[in-house]
Amino acid sequence: MRAVTIAGDPPRLALTDRAAPDRPGECRVRVRTAGICGTDLELLRGYAGFRGVPGHEFAGVVEEAPPADAALIGRRVVGEINVGCGACRFCRLGVREHCDDRTVLGIRDRDGAFAEYLTLPATNLHALPDALDDVQAVFVEPTAAACRILEQVAVGPSTRAAVVGDGRMGLLTAQVLRSTGAAVVVVGKHDEKLAVARRLGLDSTRVEDARRRLRAFDLVVDATGHPSGLDLALEMTRPRGTVVMKSTYHGSIAWTPWRSIVDEIALIGSRCGPFAPAIALLASGRVDVGPMVAEVRPLQEFEAAFASARHALKVVLQVTEAAP
Amino acid sequence: MRAVTIAGDPPRLALTDRAAPDRPGECRVRVRTAGICGTDLELLRGYAGFRGVPGHEFAGVVEEAPPADAALIGRRVVGEINVGCGACRFCRLGVREHCDDRTVLGIRDRDGAFAEYLTLPATNLHALPDALDDVQAVFVEPTAAACRILEQVAVGPSTRAAVVGDGRMGLLTAQVLRSTGAAVVVVGKHDEKLAVARRLGLDSTRVEDARRRLRAFDLVVDATGHPSGLDLALEMTRPRGTVVMKSTYHGSIAWTPWRSIVDEIALIGSRCGPFAPAIALLASGRVDVGPMVAEVRPLQEFEAAFASARHALKVVLQVTEAAP
Repeated sequence: MRAVTIAGDPPRLALTDRAAPDRPGECRVRVRTAGICGTDLELLRGYAGFRGVPGHEFAGVVEEAPPADAALIGRRVVGEINVGCGACRFCRLGVREHCDDRTVLGIRDRDGAFAEYLTLPATNLHALPDALDDVQAVFVEPTAAACRILEQVAVGPSTRAAVVGDGRMGLLTAQVLRSTGAAVVVVGKHDEKLAVARRLGLDSTRVEDARRRLRAFDLVVDATGHPSGLDLALEMTRPRGTVVMKSTYHGSIAWTPWRSIVDEIALIGSRCGPFAPAIALLASGRVDVGPMVAEVRPLQEFEAAFASARHALKVVLQVTEAAP
Repeated sequence: MRAVTIAGDPPRLALTDRAAPDRPGECRVRVRTAGICGTDLELLRGYAGFRGVPGHEFAGVVEEAPPADAALIGRRVVGEINVGCGACRFCRLGVREHCDDRTVLGIRDRDGAFAEYLTLPATNLHALPDALDDVQAVFVEPTAAACRILEQVAVGPSTRAAVVGDGRMGLLTAQVLRSTGAAVVVVGKHDEKLAVARRLGLDSTRVEDARRRLRAFDLVVDATGHPSGLDLALEMTRPRGTVVMKSTYHGSIAWTPWRSIVDEIALIGSRCGPFAPAIALLASGRVDVGPMVAEVRPLQEFEAAFASARHALKVVLQVTEAAP
């Protein structure tokens, strides 16, 4: 099968031909679409030391499944990306995303979605409603990650929230927070992305203006992917407020803990989230991704696609076509 | 009156003679005892830029009070250290410790307890039960700070907790956590302080051993006063666990956020806490401070006292004597 891989040191992308994955007991999915995520760009900078096929936001069709899961064959699906050992304390609690021995689709010890086929256990797969097309469906995984915040922090109509970062993750997070009735403002520095925020009906402001609204927000999410985002998020948070760290980036930062201690700020790391509410929010249009899709390119144009993904809101690879 | 002050640049301690404080509407307290805290040592390193009379852990007797609070006259008291403006959003919620315009006894814009007299509003004062003597009573304020954790994090019999730091704050925090039924281990590096921990019936371990118990604890409190404590606390915390930052220290640290994000750690700053449960825990003996008192010295021996406080568990200044 055709696959885009990360190989070498420093890591580089290449289009290769390799055997389709075959993991006993898992379903084989023919990938239709796959989104390029900030984490994929971080993998190319060395994050997680990943080598293999990246890609963890996808929509596809189940072609093969174990007998017990045969009902999935032919279904259009998206997939949760963490696969646990099934035996450890976290897996027993159903929290496979924290299994010590987990593999993660396209991120850790498991080939991902920038290939014609991937495999995942049936328990990871969620059937897609017709209301979501293949391109919209690649947003299920990051929208689920935004929904994770609602499991960690009480957010509702009395919450004054800010999202620092006007990129993919920022605009999804802002819409997810808004769905609770919270007042949300997006803080950004890119005119074209802030224009998309306005098209999505989101209140937005520029970083320079946000610096005049210090200690004003109950909840601030850092979705910038840069250390400077965390600094601003901390400054914008009221005493006893919460900062959610939604970006993963490589490396360390200089941090002055005493202000967070004196102001009793809670600083919470946040990663993968629940797919069912994400599918529902996207299918209902309460999270609208239409204005966020900058390009849809065939797999072989991966180099141009990755180049665009460095600045565009969302670039989607068309890996295979829908059957005629 | 006699007072120990911080003056100069760099800040230095001196014994001075100055007018007794007189703040309209507040109570005047004759200070009997005052404890030296890690924050006092940080003030001498430049923390908070404080100049004036330090000291915020005290026991004393009310000598003067406004007419409405005359019942306090003659009572032996301890005092909450934050004085709010009374009008802002935090003061209206009763959270004066986060008032933007607060003064803080011996820390911010308000002279403290290393002097024969201090003043505080009646609302800050708590009468002491006979079960607590003047030396034990200086532990009310830091024990209250430890009790603050119980307001921020759900702690109970199923909590596996660790306290990093075998100093004053560490041993108080460990006892407060234990009072909930939590399993608590103190992590330290000082033989004599770990021996006190054992005398208090606390499970304890050395830092080197703690480094073999990584990702094992639901809750880890950093009470070391050093940046290295936070690193170890983060390493010891299980995925989705909580780190409480109980130390204030000057300056910035190098921090690698990605592990906290991947493991979804909550990192919570924690400061002042409720006096009533602290008094109750001390009066009942569930928090035992007897083995922690290294020295009680008269005020004029402040230099020796501060020198001892750099390594001893708790050094108390006898500011004035009880009336015969």
